[in-house]
Order: sequence, then structure tokens, then C-alpha cells
Amino acid sequence: MNQNVHIINGPNLNLLGSREPGVYGTATLDDIEAQCAARLDAYGLKMTFFQSNAEGAIVDMIQAAGRSACGIVLNAAAYSHTSIAILDALQNINIPVIEVHLSNIFAREDFRYHSYVSAAATGVICGLGAHGYELAIDALARQLKQ
Amino acid sequence: MNQNVHIINGPNLNLLGSREPGVYGTATLDDIEAQCAARLDAYGLKMTFFQSNAEGAIVDMIQAAGRSACGIVLNAAAYSHTSIAILDALQNINIPVIEVHLSNIFAREDFRYHSYVSAAATGVICGLGAHGYELAIDALARQLKQ
Amino acid sequence: MNQNVHIINGPNLNLLGSREPGVYGTATLDDIEAQCAARLDAYGLKMTFFQSNAEGAIVDMIQAAGRSACGIVLNAAAYSHTSIAILDALQNINIPVIEVHLSNIFAREDFRYHSYVSAAATGVICGLGAHGYELAIDALARQLKQ
Amino acid sequence: MNQNVHIINGPNLNLLGSREPGVYGTATLDDIEAQCAARLDAYGLKMTFFQSNAEGAIVDMIQAAGRSACGIVLNAAAYSHTSIAILDALQNINIPVIEVHLSNIFAREDFRYHSYVSAAATGVICGLGAHGYELAIDALARQLKQ
Amino acid sequence: MNQNVHIINGPNLNLLGSREPGVYGTATLDDIEAQCAARLDAYGLKMTFFQSNAEGAIVDMIQAAGRSACGIVLNAAAYSHTSIAILDALQNINIPVIEVHLSNIFAREDFRYHSYVSAAATGVICGLGAHGYELAIDALARQLKQ
Amino acid sequence: MNQNVHIINGPNLNLLGSREPGVYGTATLDDIEAQCAARLDAYGLKMTFFQSNAEGAIVDMIQAAGRSACGIVLNAAAYSHTSIAILDALQNINIPVIEVHLSNIFAREDFRYHSYVSAAATGVICGLGAHGYELAIDALARQLKQ
Amino acid sequence: MNQNVHIINGPNLNLLGSREPGVYGTATLDDIEAQCAARLDAYGLKMTFFQSNAEGAIVDMIQAAGRSACGIVLNAAAYSHTSIAILDALQNINIPVIEVHLSNIFAREDFRYHSYVSAAATGVICGLGAHGYELAIDALARQLKQ
Amino acid sequence: MNQNVHIINGPNLNLLGSREPGVYGTATLDDIEAQCAARLDAYGLKMTFFQSNAEGAIVDMIQAAGRSACGIVLNAAAYSHTSIAILDALQNINIPVIEVHLSNIFAREDFRYHSYVSAAATGVICGLGAHGYELAIDALARQLKQ
Amino acid sequence: MNQNVHIINGPNLNLLGSREPGVYGTATLDDIEAQCAARLDAYGLKMTFFQSNAEGAIVDMIQAAGRSACGIVLNAAAYSHTSIAILDALQNINIPVIEVHLSNIFAREDFRYHSYVSAAATGVICGLGAHGYELAIDALARQLKQ
Amino acid sequence: MNQNVHIINGPNLNLLGSREPGVYGTATLDDIEAQCAARLDAYGLKMTFFQSNAEGAIVDMIQAAGRSACGIVLNAAAYSHTSIAILDALQNINIPVIEVHLSNIFAREDFRYHSYVSAAATGVICGLGAHGYELAIDALARQLKQ
Amino acid sequence: MNQNVHIINGPNLNLLGSREPGVYGTATLDDIEAQCAARLDAYGLKMTFFQSNAEGAIVDMIQAAGRSACGIVLNAAAYSHTSIAILDALQNINIPVIEVHLSNIFAREDFRYHSYVSAAATGVICGLGAHGYELAIDALARQLKQ
Amino acid sequence: MNQNVHIINGPNLNLLGSREPGVYGTATLDDIEAQCAARLDAYGLKMTFFQSNAEGAIVDMIQAAGRSACGIVLNAAAYSHTSIAILDALQNINIPVIEVHLSNIFAREDFRYHSYVSAAATGVICGLGAHGYELAIDALARQLKQ
Repeated sequence: MNQNVHIINGPNLNLLGSREPGVYGTATLDDIEAQCAARLDAYGLKMTFFQSNAEGAIVDMIQAAGRSACGIVLNAAAYSHTSIAILDALQNINIPVIEVHLSNIFAREDFRYHSYVSAAATGVICGLGAHGYELAIDALARQLKQ
Repeated sequence: MNQNVHIINGPNLNLLGSREPGVYGTATLDDIEAQCAARLDAYGLKMTFFQSNAEGAIVDMIQAAGRSACGIVLNAAAYSHTSIAILDALQNINIPVIEVHLSNIFAREDFRYHSYVSAAATGVICGLGAHGYELAIDALARQLKQ
Repeated sequence: MNQNVHIINGPNLNLLGSREPGVYGTATLDDIEAQCAARLDAYGLKMTFFQSNAEGAIVDMIQAAGRSACGIVLNAAAYSHTSIAILDALQNINIPVIEVHLSNIFAREDFRYHSYVSAAATGVICGLGAHGYELAIDALARQLKQ
Repeated sequence: MNQNVHIINGPNLNLLGSREPGVYGTATLDDIEAQCAARLDAYGLKMTFFQSNAEGAIVDMIQAAGRSACGIVLNAAAYSHTSIAILDALQNINIPVIEVHLSNIFAREDFRYHSYVSAAATGVICGLGAHGYELAIDALARQLKQ
Repeated sequence: MNQNVHIINGPNLNLLGSREPGVYGTATLDDIEAQCAARLDAYGLKMTFFQSNAEGAIVDMIQAAGRSACGIVLNAAAYSHTSIAILDALQNINIPVIEVHLSNIFAREDFRYHSYVSAAATGVICGLGAHGYELAIDALARQLKQ
Repeated sequence: MNQNVHIINGPNLNLLGSREPGVYGTATLDDIEAQCAARLDAYGLKMTFFQSNAEGAIVDMIQAAGRSACGIVLNAAAYSHTSIAILDALQNINIPVIEVHLSNIFAREDFRYHSYVSAAATGVICGLGAHGYELAIDALARQLKQ
Repeated sequence: MNQNVHIINGPNLNLLGSREPGVYGTATLDDIEAQCAARLDAYGLKMTFFQSNAEGAIVDMIQAAGRSACGIVLNAAAYSHTSIAILDALQNINIPVIEVHLSNIFAREDFRYHSYVSAAATGVICGLGAHGYELAIDALARQLKQ
Repeated sequence: MNQNVHIINGPNLNLLGSREPGVYGTATLDDIEAQCAARLDAYGLKMTFFQSNAEGAIVDMIQAAGRSACGIVLNAAAYSHTSIAILDALQNINIPVIEVHLSNIFAREDFRYHSYVSAAATGVICGLGAHGYELAIDALARQLKQ
Repeated sequence: MNQNVHIINGPNLNLLGSREPGVYGTATLDDIEAQCAARLDAYGLKMTFFQSNAEGAIVDMIQAAGRSACGIVLNAAAYSHTSIAILDALQNINIPVIEVHLSNIFAREDFRYHSYVSAAATGVICGLGAHGYELAIDALARQLKQ
Repeated sequence: MNQNVHIINGPNLNLLGSREPGVYGTATLDDIEAQCAARLDAYGLKMTFFQSNAEGAIVDMIQAAGRSACGIVLNAAAYSHTSIAILDALQNINIPVIEVHLSNIFAREDFRYHSYVSAAATGVICGLGAHGYELAIDALARQLKQ
Repeated sequence: MNQNVHIINGPNLNLLGSREPGVYGTATLDDIEAQCAARLDAYGLKMTFFQSNAEGAIVDMIQAAGRSACGIVLNAAAYSHTSIAILDALQNINIPVIEVHLSNIFAREDFRYHSYVSAAATGVICGLGAHGYELAIDALARQLKQ
Repeated sequence: MNQNVHIINGPNLNLLGSREPGVYGTATLDDIEAQCAARLDAYGLKMTFFQSNAEGAIVDMIQAAGRSACGIVLNAAAYSHTSIAILDALQNINIPVIEVHLSNIFAREDFRYHSYVSAAATGVICGLGAHGYELAIDALARQLKQ
């Protein structure tokens, strides 16, 4: 089986660490990439790590994952709440998807409560900061074993 | 008069045929392109066939059509339901636009019921699979004759 | 197989042509009947053409179609938006149904946006005037061939 | 000019007088017919007085009025609140329409607050019992003079 | 006292048994009529059994029941959810009304959850198939004894 | 019995005739005052005619009417839609109140559809221009005779 | 097969008979218990009769019924409208459940219109007072025979 | 520091494994208890494992945790969606709380989308079955180290 | 007349004083009990003081008060906003009920704005901390004198 | 410290006692003024007692209180539900405000449920008739002591 | 042409500068008046500067402006959100109106998001403090030149 | 301090001047660019002028501005109403942002009333055409001086 995991990050996550650490924590996206690489390596899995501010690029990457990855960790950030295109992309693939949010989106503004991603995700992890990515990889590894 | 028709396809339609044929049918986007070319040819019309997962690229293409095409067949897919930018682009042009959906969007999830595109379209055809594109071309040809 | 198509028209469509041509076009219902007869004849199909202002009579005719027709073209007009009885009648039959609206109901008052008919229709064609009936017959013929 | 006024009454108004006089008053529909005839006669106008429990029959009668009457007094009763078909029929005619309700529909259940008829009526008179019909005729006569 | 019970059935119930038995059961309307006749006979009551697809005809029949029956069993089917005219007819009579639905309308689409009939009914029985009519007659007989 | 009728007019009605005659007609408030005086005189009734742009002043005048008038004709204009204070004032008096609107408020913006006044009025007359005041006086006279 | 039926009653039903007889009837819960015992005995069924004001206790009892009963008659009273826990308990069992309400909950306050129980019930009987329990037992017996 | 973790389980979770394994998985609550004990032991933490069908008992246990535990893993099941009392209890304590749901509540009925617990939780993990409890313990251990 | 007053306190009020004094004040529930005892004693009234985290136990206690108390002071805390069962219990008794909230629930989260208790209470006092209980007793004493 | 308390009364409260005593009690506003004077005197506080039907005048008086009073008892009556201007005035002052309503506004029409005043009030007392003013003064005195 | 500009200020703006400077800035209304006078003078325009807490007085002043001014700068404060009367007054005049808000009303409470004024204003400027008035005068001057 | 201002323009603004001048004015985007350059030059500020139809590109540019500009003038056009990603980008930067709309978005379709941008903007200017950009620069210059 394909052993590649796509870690896909949505808009503004490239700014992590430098801004609003009270909400999003102090880890930078590079830190998260390093942590994810280590965690995946422990499971014998490879990584494609991706960030974009463009909705269409995220759709492209999810389609690519559908062709060449065994699982996705997806933090679609703001697009989680507005993008039916991302939902459609996810509904078109057959690999497990773990949705991650750094902050607890359920304790923020009302418009962050609903995520289109959730309806197509295997599981959701939120509010646990950068550690959430590691837990998502753990969850994905467990799914892949089953 | 300009004799070019733009057939514009939105996000995830590049995957047609290989996925969820129960919902979207077995025709691939290449099949649809070939059918459209043949149909337009019968009317003496030319074709620009376009697909993108990016909302902005679709806006660009609609603007381009406004300058150099005589009509549009538009399947904006998921962006139909979320994109006011596409609506604005359509409101800025003076050529007929036929909206097409492969599936019957009115018999699916609630969030697919409303389409911003419809308010600016001449007509809407949905639920008839790839054949809907051919009917849209027929409708466009009829509009252009009037 | 049964070769009869029911073309069923709802309330106020008997007035077509004489009133509000800006919205509904200049074709009369007789014109539409003639066009439909010609189109169906080209496919070797027969026609029952019906109009009523009464919801119950439309339910009756849909039930009759369920027993003796191979397909329905249905323009339920105002009842599209209010009649669960018509929806139930449609859910009780197994033949393809193409919903037609002369005007683009999605660009009019809010209460015309939702159609109960759509949930039970194979496909929907709207905004294309009398030509929409011909396209609906084309769609029906295609469905019957499959 | 045509000198005929259609007085059109909707469902359950045939029971007037015998039931719920606290809400609808003690006048029977025959009493109202007699009062209307007298009032119209004073203006030199003729009367067609009609009642039906069927929505389609009321649509038929409005269409007939559009062809042969100079004005309508319409108490659509329960259909006021649910019938887009009646609204469409009214929008297809060019004569003044005075909407009447015996009871004050704005002081009853919520679902009686909205009337589709009102959007197409010249004026609305409600809460004044059988006298409301006479006032409606006065209003119509004034409209016809202008 | 008048010993006649009206069993009034709404749109599409004439198709019972032949269609969607998973939802509505296998009993035909004739079967139900026979069961009801037997049950009423056991109580010494007579039966008028009626079905119509027309809202106005159901209003007429409820009015007739108000004049000549001692109770009503009413399955208004789709009109339960849309007809204020039927509600008004029920509010104009003084005999007990038992509302029946073959299927459990509370476990289906949202638009079937609300019934205008319920507000004017003595009691409601739903989800119990054809047996629900027999229980409704039992309930009516009990009401009439009190 | 007290023979005085209060005709109370709300905000911006002092501008009648000079502005937006397409919506409100060409009669000035002085014209309406003269018509009302004549109509009331025919019934042997006296008139207090009042206009104010201030909600509190209208409440004051309604209270005064409650003490010294036999009926009210009330066109509360914009305050109809926002003033619970006026509703409370009306609920504190025991004389008939006829609500009048020059334009058909039910065919305008949504926020004009609801009137707090209506819930406390005997009857409502709208869409009939200045003539509506005369009809309201007729209605009031009829109420006072009963 | 297990021959035990659980009759489960929710909050405040222990007060039946002594309070608000206009709404709930004059039968006490003891009366209802006796009637149910007699009715079940006629079918050769046994009874566990239970009442509690505590949501958790009702969940416990439904779980117990799932293990040791052949059917449930459930009047969850106020918890019908607020308890997803009871809904979940019902969805975890495979025996028929008849929902009963003494009063017609559809003719009372809005917040009583929706019942979570209904979605998981086989059938619903309401508005028929204590007799509703007997009818529910009849319905259950019929279900068990099938 | 106190080294005890409370694992608190809400209504119907005592039935896990035996019912609806498609939704909730095949692990029993005993299995989950054993897994949690092992996981906590690896972190040198102790466990209090609790399940109740009663909302009040869960409030009691959260209060107890506030006095004697260093963290909570909470699967409030159905009460997540209805209990402000549980939310208040959580807002009264100062230890980290990880909310867990076995199924993906965001891909089920609408009424399961909102959780009062989430607003007071540190993080949320859902859709990952019994493994979710282990990930929650991992998250808790990480929180406690910080 | 019975001279006993029930002071009933809902979930999490047992924690008063030690937690969130900014919102709920520094008085403990014991302090409030002492104040209430003194206040009631001044009126010659006796006290039953009760707190529970369980909705059912509060229903039980309200029923008990209905049998043996002359009035209730009720702070149902979180259950105020969710419990129809408590509302039903209150509607089953004939003694005055004063609803108390320590904090101003109208200046907090939206879901605290509505209280089912209020509809059945004689009066409501909120936002005045522990003093609110004393004022409630004053109000109750006044009610009992009338 | 300034020892003056403003007791501010909104629209229609000048009619108290003479109208609708079932809802508002038999005390006149003069009675209430006398009771308040006595109560304040017992606390060594002075009184400014004010009533107006005009929203602007109430805003003026609240501003005046902000400059020269130590507290406000405010019964804004109908303006409670509609006036953001009064809310803004209250948010501009730093003295305690006790909101009073004679009737239980939570057991009346829906539009009386929400009060803009409440969000800016220290506490709310309602449903206790004229006595509510005395309790409000007690509450104010307690606030001023702290 | 008339060279007078009306600067109209709504409720509580007389308190500017002394209260809540964090929200509204430190400029007093006198400061703003002086700035506006200077700015208008630079354009050769005269000024009428007005503030009132009364809705009716603001309607009066807008009517006066319609007769004698060439433009309006309007900060209706709280009445922006509740006054249809002010909207109507604005719709009755033909001069440009610039709406100003000191604070960014779109970043405050929900009920401040909607302004009736906006629908009738030429332009809207908000969130820029006292400077917003100067920009509004600039905008007005530009409009007057066109 | 950095002296660069980013003027960022959203979808379809590249078409300005040629289309719908009744709504958007006759100035082209080049005209606006020239005006802005002149205005900024007068304040000694530099300009980056940008337009894109792509949401992600606008996010990118806002991030760039956060690193290298002293202020932003943002006309996000259609994305104002749908893009949480743009809102997030704005919330990640610390420089003033003035939102501009050429047309009065509050007097157009409902879906244009809400702007996500507004919540993160310093101020909003709309309805003033191309002049609005100049006023925005004035406002920005004033902000930068403070």
C-alpha cells in the first residue's frame, strides 16, 4: 500500500507562531512540519507537507492525495467554514481524513462553529495546538492498521 | 457576430467518471468536451472548454467570455452555492448564460439548493447528466438566433 | 413499452401568450402543445396534453400517467411551490419526470425558489421559455433510451 | 366599459352565520350577497357572486373576471394564506381587486398574518364583518371612477 | 343521535397497497374500507367512506360530516401539512375528529412534521398502518359514549 | 354618548401630496382633514384632527381619545411597525379603532408588513389612498351604531 | 418469546387525576395502571408499570426493557421534548415502542410540538386521555403478532 | 500535584459494543476502561472511571473531579447537546477537560452538531472510536506537563 | 394555613462562594440558607432548604411543596433554561413561586436569556446576588398576605 | 455622596390603576409615588419621580440621573423592548439601575420577552406589581451600601 | 442653490467626550461642531448643527432640511437601528445624505449591524471618530459639485 | 516608519468603468489608481496598487502588507461577504485598514449587507464611488498621525 500522508494546511497558517500566540500557540508551521515528519517516520510513513492561501490549490492537493496518498491530515482553517468545493473533493476520495484545528473552534465566533470538512472527515481533533497534528497522525496510523 | 462559446467547469469536475458515478454519471470530462464540440459544430459554433478548481480562475474566464464569446455554458459546481464573485462576473457581461448541473441539486443536501449563478443565468438545466451540456448548447443556439 | 408522454400544465398556464409576455414569452399554450406534438412525433412518441387550475386534477393526471405513460413533462406552475400532494403523487410512480418552468424561477420572488416537484423529478429545465418543453422532451427521450 | 363586479368567496364561507358568530359575525353568505347586490345596484354595477371550497375553481373565476368584469371583491379565506396560484391569477389581470376579510386576520393565529392576495390587491379591508364587503364595493366604485 | 361516521381520505391514498409498501403497508384502500365497516358495525355505527385528491372536495365532505355525522376519521395525507382550509372546516364543526396517518410522519421529511389538522383534532394516531383506522374508530366510539 | 372622533396621523404624513405621489397619492393632509370633517359631519360626529412626528405625542393623543372620544381613525405610519408603546396605549382604551394606511403596506418592503397597531384595531383599511379615511369613518359610524 | 410489556411514565404523571383534569383527564395513574393490567392480561401479556420524574431513571428502564421486555408503551411527558438521551436509549433497542400522550400536544404550546421520542417510536397516539394507553396496548399486541 | 484523572461517560454508553457497532464500534465500555487504565498507567496517572445515565450524577462527578482530579476525559453523550448544567459544572473547575465522542457527531443528525461541553473543553476529539479515549489521555498528559 | 416555604436550589449552586465570585458573589449556599431562615422567621414562616444537581429531584421537591408548603423560592440555575419538566411541575401547583437568579441572566450568554420557569412564576428577581433571596421572601410574604 | 434616586416610568404608566387592573394591579402611579417616597425616606434617600410617554424624554432623564442621582429605578414599559437609545443612555452612566416591571413580562406576548434595558441593569424585578418598586428600592439601598 | 448643510445628531451624542472615550473618542460634540463649521466654511457652505434625544425631533429636522438645506450629515446613533420614521423622512427628500457613525458599528453588538438610515443614504462612513464628520462634509461637497 | 500603503482590490474591479456605470460609476480602475497615487503623494506616502479575482491572492497580499506596509485600503468586493480567510488575514496584522465600497452595499441585495471585512477594519466608507478611495487615504493618513 501507498505509504504517503498528505498534511494539508489552509489560509494564514503560514503565519503561525509569529501572530496571536494566545489563540494559535507559539509553534511555527516549520515546527509543526518537523514534528509531523518525526511522528510519521515512527510509523514508517512518508509525508507531503503543504500550505496554501488558495482554496483551489487545496482542492488540487486533496485530489492529488486521492491518487497517491494513504491518508490526509487536514487543517483547512478559514476554508473549513465556507468551502463546499473542499467538501466535494473530500467526498471524491476513499482514504481516511483527520480534521485538525489548533484552537477550539467551538469556543470562538459563531461562524467558526460549522465546518464543511467535518461531514467528510473520519475524525476531528481540535483545541490541542500543534500536538493535535501528532494525535491526528496517531489516529491515521490506527485507521490504516484496521 | 462572435461565434465562440465558453464551456466553463468548476471544482472537482476534472474527476468526473472515475468517482461517484451513481451521482454524477460515467462520462468523463473529456467525453463531455467531445460531445460539446460535436454539438457546437453542428450549429457552426466554436468552443473554448475550461475547467478549474480555483474560484478566481473561473471569474477570469467569465470576464474573458464577456469580451470574446457569444455565450456561456457554466457548471460552477460547488462554487455555484458560495461564490458571489462569480455572480458579479456574470452580471458584468451581456451574453446568454446557461447554468448546468449534472446531478439534481434540488434532491441533495440543503446547502446545494441555492445557486448564486441562477440569479444571473438565462436558464438552468440540472439532473440530466452529461446530456444536460448538449441541451444547454441547444438552448444557447436558440437564444442566439433570437 | 408504453409510448405515451403526459405533458401536464398547472394553474394559469392556460393564459400564456396573452399576459405578461415579458415574463412568460409570447407563445400560447396551444403553440406549446403543437411544438410538443411535433417533437414527440419525431421520437415516435404519443402525447397527452393537459392543463388544469386544480391541484387535485393534476394529482389525478400524474396517477394516470403512472399507469399508462412512459414519461412526464411537468410544469406545475404555482403548485410547484406549495403542493406536497403533487410531490407524493410523483413519488408513487416509476417513470422519468422532467420539470419545466418557462421563466427563471430562481430570479424571481423568494417564494418561487423552492419547488416540491424538484425533489421527485429526474431533471429540471427553467428559464428557457417554450423551448424548455422541447428540451424536456429531448431529455425524456434520452432517458427512455437508457 | 364592462359594468360587472365579481364577488369571489373562498373555502368555508358558505357556512357563515351558522358557525362561530363571535369570530365571523351573524350574517349568512346570502345576507352578504343581498347587501352587495344592493350596494352595487346603487352604483349602477352588476354582480356575479361566487363561492367555492376549491382553490382551482377560484383561480378559474378570477381568470373569468379578468375577461368579463370591471373589478373584483375577493375574500379568499384560508387560501389567502397558502395559494400562490391565486396570486398568479391576480397578477394576470388588469382590473382593481379589493381584498376583504370578515375577521381581523392580524389579531389571530400567526399563519393568518400573511396573505398572498395582498401583494396583488389594490387595497385590503379586514375586521369589519359583512360591512367590509360594502366598503370594498365603495372602494371599487371610487377606483373605477378614476 | 346521528350514528354515521365519515372516514375521509386525502390525496394519493387511492394508490395504497400497490406502491411503496415499505412506507405505507400492503393494505389497499378497499381493504381499509372493509376493516372500517366491520369495526363500525361492531359499535352499531354506519360509515361513509370517501377519498379524493382534491382539497376542496375534502373541505366539502368535512362540512357534510358537520351536518350529518357523529364523528370523523381523517387521513388528510399531504393536505395535512398545507391546508388551512381543512383546518377551518374542522374548526367549524362540533363532532370528534380522529386524525390518522399510516406512516410515522414524525420520522420522515421535516415538512411532514407539522399538521394543520392536529390543532383541530381530538386525537392523533400515526405510524400503525391500516390498524390505525381501527384504533381511531375505537377512540371515536369511546368519545361518543362520553 | 361622546360624539368626538380622533383622527390621528403619524410621522411624515404632514408632507403628503408634495412628495412621492406615486406611492401616497396627491391629496395633502389638509385635503384629508377637510374630507374627514365633511364625512363625520354627515354622521353628526365631531372631529379632532392631529398629526405628529413624535411617538410619545401619539401615545398622549390616544390616551386623550380614550378619555374624551367615541372612536379613533389611526394612521400611525412608520410607528405602526415599531411602536409597542402605541399598541399599549390602544390596549388601554375601550373605543373602536380603525387603522388606515394610504399605501398597500403589504406590497412594499418586508419591514412594513407587520403592524403592532393591527393587533389592537377593530379593523384595518389600506391601499385605498385618501379615500381610506372616509371608509374608516363609515366603518366607525357603523361600529358606533351597534 | 418474552411476554412482558413495560409501561413507562415520565415526570409529573404521578400527579394525574388530582390536577388540571381539564387537560389531562380525571383518571389517576393508579387507574391507568389497572386498565393497562387488564388490557395486557386479555392478550396474555405481563406488565411492568413504572413512573419517574428523573430522566436518567427512564433511560435505565428503557435499557432494562431492551433486555427483558417484548414492547414498550412510553409516555415520556416533558422529557419527550428535551431528551436526546431517551431517544438514544430507544435507538439502542429492537422492540416496538408506542408513544402515548394524554393530551393533544399539537394543540398546546409550541415547545410541546416536537418530540424526540417520535423519531424512534413505531407509532404515536395522543389526545385520547387514559384510553390512549389501552389503544397503545392494542397496537403493541398487533405488532407482536406480525 | 493530584495524579487522578476522571473518565466520565454519559447516558447509554453502558451499552457499548452490543448495539449499533456500525456507529459506535465493537469495543465495550469495559474494554475502554481497560485501555484507559493502561494508557494512564504509562503516564503514571491514576483513574476514576464512571458512567451514568443521569445528568445530575454527571454534574456531581464533575464537581468531585474539580476537587480531587488533575484532569477529565468527558464523553457526555446525549447530554452534550442538551445540558447547560454540565457546562456550568465545567465552568466551575480549573483542570483541563478533553471532550470525546466515539462517532463523528458532525456527520449525524443536526441536533448532535452542537455540544455545550465544547465551549468549556480544552480540546475535542471525535469520530475515532475507542481510540479517541487514548488520544484524549495523551492530550491530557501533554496539558499536564505544560 | 400551612406556614412552610420551600427554598429550592438547582445544579452547581452547592459550589457558591468558592467559585467565580465575580459572577455569583462571595456568599456560600450555607450563608444564603442562614439569611433565608432569619428572613422567614421574621415573617413567622418556616423553611425547607434544598439543593440538588438532579432535575428529577427538583421536580420531586416542587411536587412536595405543592402538597405541604405555602410558597416557593426557586433558583433552578441551568435547569431554568432547559427543563419543561420543572415547568410542568410548577403548573401543577397552586402556591406562589418567586424565581431568583444570583446573576443577571439577561446580560450573559444567549442561551441563558430564556427561562421555562418564568412562565409559571409569580415574579422574577435576578442580578441582585444573595440579597435576591431575601427580596423573594419579602415578595412571597406580601403575596401570602393578599 | 449624592442621595437622590430617580424613579423613571415609561409610556402609559400614567394610566395605572384605572385600566386593566387584572394585568397591572389597582395601584395608581400616585400610589406608587407615595410608596416609593416613604421607602426611600426610610433609607434617608431623596426621590425624583418621573413619567413620560416620550422615549427622548426618558433618555434625557437618564442622562440627568447620571449627573445628579445615586441610583435609578426604571420601568421603561414598552420602550424596554424597542429602545436602543435608552440602552445607550444607561451604558453612559455609572450608577446602579434596577429594572422593574409590574406584570410578569415573561408570561405575556413574545415581543415582551426581550428587554434592552436588562443588559445594562444591575438587577431585574418583575411580576410583583407595585411592591416591585419597593423591592427595587431595597435592592438599590443594598447596592449603595456596598 | 441653497448653501446650508444640516448636521443632525441623534440620542446620547450630547454626552460625547465625557463618557466611554474608548468607544467614541475624546472629542466633545462642541469640538465636532467647531470642526464641521471650519470644514464647511472652507467649501463656502453654511451649517445648522442639531442634536436631540427625541426621534420625532430628528424627523422634524430632516423635513426642515428637505425644505432649506443642500445636504445632510446624519449620525442618528441608536435610532439608526430602530427608526423607520427617520427612513421615511429621508425617502421624502431629494438632497444627498451622508450617514456617519463614530464607532465601527459592524464590530459591536449584532443589533447595531443594521441601519435603516443606510438604505436611504448616499454614502456611509463609520469607525473613524470625529474625523468621519469631516470626511462626510468632503463627500457632500463632492456630491454637490456633480 | 514604513511609508507604503497597499490598495487592494477584489474580484471584478478590473472591469470598472466599462460596465454598469449606474451602479459603480464611470471611473476605471486605472483612474482610481492615478487618483490614489496623487492623494498618497500629497501625504508623502507610497503606493502598492493591486487587483485580483482570486481570494488566495488577496490573502497573500494582506499578509505582505502586514510585513511591509503602514496601512491598507481594501475593497474586497464580493469576497467581503464570503471570505473568512480574508478576515483571518486582517486579524493577523497590526496596521490600520480602511474598507471601501464604491456602491452603497446597504441598499442592494441582502447578501451584500454583511461584510466579514468590517469586523476587522478600522473604518468603513461606502457609496461614494471612486471618491471613497481618496477619503479612505485621508482617513488612513489621519490614523497614521495619531
